[in-house]
Amino acid sequence: MPESTFSLSDIANIIGAQLRGEGNCQIKGIAPLYRAQQGEISFITNSQFRNYLSTSQASAVIMSAEEAKHCKINALIMDNPYLGFAKSAELFQPKLTIQHEIHNTVVIGEDCKINSKVSIGPYCVIGSQVEIDENTVVGAGCIIGDGVKIGKNCRLFPHATLYNNIKLGNRVWLHSGTVIGSDGFGLANDKGQWHKIPQLGSVIIGDDVEIGANTTVDRGALDDTIIENGVKLDNLIQVAHNVSIGEHTAIAACTGIAGSARIGKRCMIGGGASIVGHIEIVDDVILVGTATVEKSITVPGIYGSGTGLLPFRELKKVVVRIRQLDDIVRRLQQLERNEK
Amino acid sequence: MPESTFSLSDIANIIGAQLRGEGNCQIKGIAPLYRAQQGEISFITNSQFRNYLSTSQASAVIMSAEEAKHCKINALIMDNPYLGFAKSAELFQPKLTIQHEIHNTVVIGEDCKINSKVSIGPYCVIGSQVEIDENTVVGAGCIIGDGVKIGKNCRLFPHATLYNNIKLGNRVWLHSGTVIGSDGFGLANDKGQWHKIPQLGSVIIGDDVEIGANTTVDRGALDDTIIENGVKLDNLIQVAHNVSIGEHTAIAACTGIAGSARIGKRCMIGGGASIVGHIEIVDDVILVGTATVEKSITVPGIYGSGTGLLPFRELKKVVVRIRQLDDIVRRLQQLERNEK
Amino acid sequence: MPESTFSLSDIANIIGAQLRGEGNCQIKGIAPLYRAQQGEISFITNSQFRNYLSTSQASAVIMSAEEAKHCKINALIMDNPYLGFAKSAELFQPKLTIQHEIHNTVVIGEDCKINSKVSIGPYCVIGSQVEIDENTVVGAGCIIGDGVKIGKNCRLFPHATLYNNIKLGNRVWLHSGTVIGSDGFGLANDKGQWHKIPQLGSVIIGDDVEIGANTTVDRGALDDTIIENGVKLDNLIQVAHNVSIGEHTAIAACTGIAGSARIGKRCMIGGGASIVGHIEIVDDVILVGTATVEKSITVPGIYGSGTGLLPFRELKKVVVRIRQLDDIVRRLQQLERNEK
Repeated sequence: MPESTFSLSDIANIIGAQLRGEGNCQIKGIAPLYRAQQGEISFITNSQFRNYLSTSQASAVIMSAEEAKHCKINALIMDNPYLGFAKSAELFQPKLTIQHEIHNTVVIGEDCKINSKVSIGPYCVIGSQVEIDENTVVGAGCIIGDGVKIGKNCRLFPHATLYNNIKLGNRVWLHSGTVIGSDGFGLANDKGQWHKIPQLGSVIIGDDVEIGANTTVDRGALDDTIIENGVKLDNLIQVAHNVSIGEHTAIAACTGIAGSARIGKRCMIGGGASIVGHIEIVDDVILVGTATVEKSITVPGIYGSGTGLLPFRELKKVVVRIRQLDDIVRRLQQLERNEK
Repeated sequence: MPESTFSLSDIANIIGAQLRGEGNCQIKGIAPLYRAQQGEISFITNSQFRNYLSTSQASAVIMSAEEAKHCKINALIMDNPYLGFAKSAELFQPKLTIQHEIHNTVVIGEDCKINSKVSIGPYCVIGSQVEIDENTVVGAGCIIGDGVKIGKNCRLFPHATLYNNIKLGNRVWLHSGTVIGSDGFGLANDKGQWHKIPQLGSVIIGDDVEIGANTTVDRGALDDTIIENGVKLDNLIQVAHNVSIGEHTAIAACTGIAGSARIGKRCMIGGGASIVGHIEIVDDVILVGTATVEKSITVPGIYGSGTGLLPFRELKKVVVRIRQLDDIVRRLQQLERNEK
Repeated sequence: MPESTFSLSDIANIIGAQLRGEGNCQIKGIAPLYRAQQGEISFITNSQFRNYLSTSQASAVIMSAEEAKHCKINALIMDNPYLGFAKSAELFQPKLTIQHEIHNTVVIGEDCKINSKVSIGPYCVIGSQVEIDENTVVGAGCIIGDGVKIGKNCRLFPHATLYNNIKLGNRVWLHSGTVIGSDGFGLANDKGQWHKIPQLGSVIIGDDVEIGANTTVDRGALDDTIIENGVKLDNLIQVAHNVSIGEHTAIAACTGIAGSARIGKRCMIGGGASIVGHIEIVDDVILVGTATVEKSITVPGIYGSGTGLLPFRELKKVVVRIRQLDDIVRRLQQLERNEK
């Protein structure tokens, strides 16, 4: 593919950094510090890697002012070099050429409003009364149910599935295998057998949401499942019916969120977390990976769960001792009483 | 879509409730108590929400006899109001109009027995010797392997995948992204390398089973993987080879069940549970979410695992102390000996 | 399907076992010991099941020399009877008849090199500059991005999805719903909002790799995600960006591996494990199911995590006591001081 080249001063402008060094240095790629070559830009976000700076062949490095004190390489200096890396990487990513074409194999239902500036790949199946707005790209083999509304500049990767009546905002990305709007797990027990509860709600997804591969978001039972603006979900996450996730919350892979849980804004949830249903997590909570949330969290902060990792032989002893904890405390109390 | 309307006495008959109030009151929808409007029915299953009763605009509420003492609204009284909610919601769900049509893009193999009263969506691929019985609906893009047998009134949502020779009973629902019959994880170690064990068994699924989005059910190695009648599986669950799951057991999302585990009837398994292979769980066991089952459970009851959630700073101390538990007990014993 | 029949001496040769008994005994199937019939071969890998040997109707059994002392049945004797089972099962598995046919519905981009001896099922969509080598079988509905390279004798089951520029070695199996090359979860925080980091790396998969149903493998941010030769991944596993997994490592279902984790060779990782990002696990580590790895493992061995399973009533007490552990130790120390 054709290479893009930018001058260092252009990159400084684009990413909002202060340039120190040769502004007309030509940059044609981005690479990690340990292997960046001449003509490439790199970045450093952790002083732990400072020793790479002295040996790196990179033509320039994005870094903090503090870091810049320690090196003489061309520097793009900014408070948030990681953001600078993100913005620089955008310059060198393969361009997506949108062809504004609906492949002739696409099956489309009745009464749809498909903007003329969209791209829809082969073997997509689109229901009736579907709306898709401009510059949205639907990959091959996506299936979109009746009444779905998709905003502008969205991107559905191949094999995304949307059940009926889902709403997506603008700039929503759904990765492959994502399922949005499947039935919530609603069951009433009728003398030992399960009676399915129809799931009559929907899923409402805001703007700038990205949802990872094979993640599932169930539709609500009566009300809707809500994913607010700017939420980022990684792969293989379960979002159950009637969950709401607040703006700009990011959730790492393999996390499960049970029904009607309400998660605040700007939360960061580590991988493999489990959140029980019908609880509330306030804004600005950080959950360490594998945290298990069994009741509401009312105070922002960092939370976690678990015993950590142990050699298995020791773990087996610990598991025995944990069962004796109540007894241990009683014996301790007895000793304390005897002291008096 | 056209609205359905039912009189309150009709609803009482349908859901098996005792009517208290205006039987000819017309109901045209269902909503949660906090936002139900005139013309809508609602329900209360938890006395915690009793205060909503006094202000609700609902035209009628499904409730227990106990709850009915506390309100004057039109009431449908029954022992299990949650079941009443389930049955009422069915009245107001969008009707699925089955068109008994096999889309002209469907690829079908040889020697199939496809009932004339089925619906198969665009771009489905169906192998040879497949049988599909009446009133079954296969959504777009489903792939059904050779020799698969599917009963009556089943519903496969788009992008369900069935490997060869799977058997589904009647009224089985498979949600999108579900994979049934993939190879079990069978490996023999041959001097440090893995030798694949062919998976020659199948998956047998009973009647009235529902399987959630992106859930995977592996085929057996020699015997079959068995999912009995009335089992309900949520999303993103792994059912490994040769597992059997007893009648009317319900399993919440993100649970993993390892090979040859046998799970009893009427169990309720919370989300994110992990069940090791080659063990047995008796009937009527309840596992709280994230429970980890490492050996057989022989006594019905409620079980769980884990430390619960802690502020991360405290968790780090706990993780250290847990490693000292054996030492703590020894020191306690020493003190006790000194006492004597 | 037509039956395959083998003499016992043939099977002994094929699986590398020593024959004890009638070499011309005809074997036409394989079954577990408890239900094997005349004409079937079985195997025993655990002396716990020795009592089945005396009553089994199997015509022959694969077993260790030690086990053979205890029975008089026709025996195929070898050090690793489980491997013998694997190899015998191969003899009786349904033959895959590869038709070397590209279905006429397959959509193929420009400048592809598709070997003439491949099979590609209905409704596959293949991008531009794709290479697929001989004897590879691509199931129905697979989607393969631009620039993907697939080796010889690979097998993609229906609904596998490969993003652009992925490389697969030879004899790679991808099960249904697998997604390879989706974007890593790379986000830079910009004043409380998330800025996506383009994922410019790829995924490189070696030879003899098998990846289970609905497993996801993200592409790298700048470098590639690497899965080395002989790695076996079960279902519903998340492999994040820039992870590397060493040769012949096997990972059970529902495990999550966070970004840039490096996992050694010949590791065995149990189901539901969680591995944090940016750490290293040395070769030959065994993680018990649900192990949570929060820092590098530098010593080979067996590791695990968790409290095990408790009756829920006891668990609730334990969860309280765990929070008191620091206090417990302090009180113990006080008592010890008082002793002196």
